[in-house]
Amino acid sequence: MEHEFHRWLRKQTLPESLSSRIVIGIGDDAAVLRGSDDCLVIATDTIAAGTHFELGRHSLELVGRKALAVNLSDLAAMAARPVATVLSFLLPKQFGLDDAKLLYSGISKLAREFDIAIVGGDTNSWDGPLVVGATVIGQRGAEQTGWTIDGVQPGDGIVVSGSFGGSIHGRHLTFSPRIELAIYLAEHYRINAATDVSDSLSMDLNALASASGLGIDFDYNAVPVSSDVRETDPGQALQCALCDGEDFELIMSIPQSEIGRLLSDPRVPVDLTVLGKATDQHRELRAIDNAGVWITVTPQGYVH
Amino acid sequence: MEHEFHRWLRKQTLPESLSSRIVIGIGDDAAVLRGSDDCLVIATDTIAAGTHFELGRHSLELVGRKALAVNLSDLAAMAARPVATVLSFLLPKQFGLDDAKLLYSGISKLAREFDIAIVGGDTNSWDGPLVVGATVIGQRGAEQTGWTIDGVQPGDGIVVSGSFGGSIHGRHLTFSPRIELAIYLAEHYRINAATDVSDSLSMDLNALASASGLGIDFDYNAVPVSSDVRETDPGQALQCALCDGEDFELIMSIPQSEIGRLLSDPRVPVDLTVLGKATDQHRELRAIDNAGVWITVTPQGYVH
Repeated sequence: MEHEFHRWLRKQTLPESLSSRIVIGIGDDAAVLRGSDDCLVIATDTIAAGTHFELGRHSLELVGRKALAVNLSDLAAMAARPVATVLSFLLPKQFGLDDAKLLYSGISKLAREFDIAIVGGDTNSWDGPLVVGATVIGQRGAEQTGWTIDGVQPGDGIVVSGSFGGSIHGRHLTFSPRIELAIYLAEHYRINAATDVSDSLSMDLNALASASGLGIDFDYNAVPVSSDVRETDPGQALQCALCDGEDFELIMSIPQSEIGRLLSDPRVPVDLTVLGKATDQHRELRAIDNAGVWITVTPQGYVH
Repeated sequence: MEHEFHRWLRKQTLPESLSSRIVIGIGDDAAVLRGSDDCLVIATDTIAAGTHFELGRHSLELVGRKALAVNLSDLAAMAARPVATVLSFLLPKQFGLDDAKLLYSGISKLAREFDIAIVGGDTNSWDGPLVVGATVIGQRGAEQTGWTIDGVQPGDGIVVSGSFGGSIHGRHLTFSPRIELAIYLAEHYRINAATDVSDSLSMDLNALASASGLGIDFDYNAVPVSSDVRETDPGQALQCALCDGEDFELIMSIPQSEIGRLLSDPRVPVDLTVLGKATDQHRELRAIDNAGVWITVTPQGYVH
């Protein structure tokens, strides 16, 4: 139902009077509004106990950290620099002040690391589970282009940061949002399209391709598999890397003319891997296996 | 616990590097960030089933409307013009697509009325009750002063819009956020301080006074009581007006030199009432009753 609702939302049109101000609206990782000399970038994400984390199993500090970090990952996918955040808490009735402070300390540590001001919020006690929402406001240059989810060009190299799979073992709470990487790349390279991996590598590769009406051919052997799954589940490592989700790495679609320079650039702060390339020959995800056979990959993700 | 947590939050300091950009941070109705030629104003509010509305009793359209309207009321209290909003939905598992569309239509109708772009959001299905969050981004002139919660000056007239009490009979879902009024007043009058009435008239009067370290003297007979309570609960009308909450009217603290001109201005779009005045002689809410006796008023509100 969520996905149906999303599709319907993207079709809702804006009043004419507003459309000139909106650079990017519903359907991308974050919204972009034209300002007077730069653009505002706005992302919002809410996490809830039982769905995105488990109370008792995960520390409140890490839960708070995650609530902000998932939003920063969305801003990274737009190559925007985060500036400020507002928070929203629904606290279970049995929560004490110390619980609320722990939650906040996880948020504020990450906010300081990224030089983000916590400027406001809304707190309610209620009978339901813990819910933490954050909206992050960022900025990027008015002249910046690319970095949309639908900008993939046929022939582009499909490049990912970091590694995939097994985030459930802890990385979904402790990952580093790829802000620094994105801002460096936006300043030095042409990036046609980008998104972050929240659902799963296969689902978000598919989202990127289908938003642009294209397909992606990639090499199974190229997929960077995280040490988390290589250790815990070696037989299923590739499957985990493609389907686990919540890796919060970037997928970028980059002109071939940029790829050589990019891979040899020692200032890129995170490992990058070329998975494959975009194609206009089909509209699927296709992977070549060890036997040299092309297989259609069905996008799959973790269902909360 | 919410109020303790709020008090603690307000004491958390910002990193030095950020403070120059923040005009108004945590503790006011909305945050204000300095932009290049105007200021960004950001408000966030989340409403939840069982706390702020009842599913089954209230229509999904009105629930959606309320989620946006409460944020617009916060922007009105800062005299900011709303520009864009991002939404956040936690939908109960049994919700269908039509339910989600109804919710959205209540939001989008109000958004169109105020010329606000819905630019993004986040949707999750979960096992808990319906939760709808909105963050609204607005703007106001960089030269605009006043309209903070802590700007009350001794001797200021304390002026309210509209009437109070009995919002539970429906007005808490259908109220008109006072954006038009606030923008008109900001353009034509000096307003030292303002807030909107969400907790209750007595609690928010007290919040305004105590944020400025002052007291307020007012006249019980001056309190404008809504027809909702005059009809349903005439014996308790004044008590309801002071304590019911969710009226979403404005309380403003205005220099006496402005009051005469303001009350005779035919272009003011909403009824205004002078309740009393701010004083540095005490730090309480005091009201004069029919017998001419001054009484200390204990701030009370509706507990969700």
